[in-house]
Amino acid sequence: MIALVVFAHGSKVEAANEAVREVARRVQIRGGYVTEAAFLEIARPDLASAVEALAGRGATRIVVLPYFLAPGRHAERDLPRLIDDIRARLRDIHSNVRIDGAANLDGHPALVGMLIDRATAVLEGS
Amino acid sequence: MIALVVFAHGSKVEAANEAVREVARRVQIRGGYVTEAAFLEIARPDLASAVEALAGRGATRIVVLPYFLAPGRHAERDLPRLIDDIRARLRDIHSNVRIDGAANLDGHPALVGMLIDRATAVLEGS
Repeated sequence: MIALVVFAHGSKVEAANEAVREVARRVQIRGGYVTEAAFLEIARPDLASAVEALAGRGATRIVVLPYFLAPGRHAERDLPRLIDDIRARLRDIHSNVRIDGAANLDGHPALVGMLIDRATAVLEGS
Repeated sequence: MIALVVFAHGSKVEAANEAVREVARRVQIRGGYVTEAAFLEIARPDLASAVEALAGRGATRIVVLPYFLAPGRHAERDLPRLIDDIRARLRDIHSNVRIDGAANLDGHPALVGMLIDRATAVLEGS
């Protein structure tokens, strides 16, 4: 079973964390893969917990999707280390689980259209 | 003249700031509006400088596009205050300039597809 994790920073603003969970739900519905949200800090679950829960539910391939817009230190430095740690921890318990990190959202061509949509909503709303 | 500002947090990772500037360039090309990048902190220019430069170049309507994924304190609290301050400062010099803030990227339906694209790139690349 393939599973996805939408991995965000985590915010003191609970609505922001809930927004990430909502995106994860929509990814699951549209993508057809079991999908969980996880957070680097502040919010729960953390990445290790989310991955272990998915492995416990039978996931054998887990892809971590960084929910970051820019190539900052969280997506570029912290996430690969986290994935390495989790991989090492999982090795004994779930030796058949493969976990990989995907690219963050930076450079995705759809971002430009999203920004133009936001501008258009203001310009046409008035 | 209508102008846009892509407004991001600003990062110590210069590649992240350059990525925002690149998005702004693409918004200008695709959207057809003069577009600048601006940053809350760390990187330059700040929002006030970007807005004043655009007003000096003849912009009479400026829309600020928050380049944030989540409804955190920067997009929700800091940006409206910043816009109020800039509006007050501009009133005497550029009394004909209107400046508005747009919604951040949270909730845009294209985000789900972007995440699925990132997952597909990993799953099909191996």
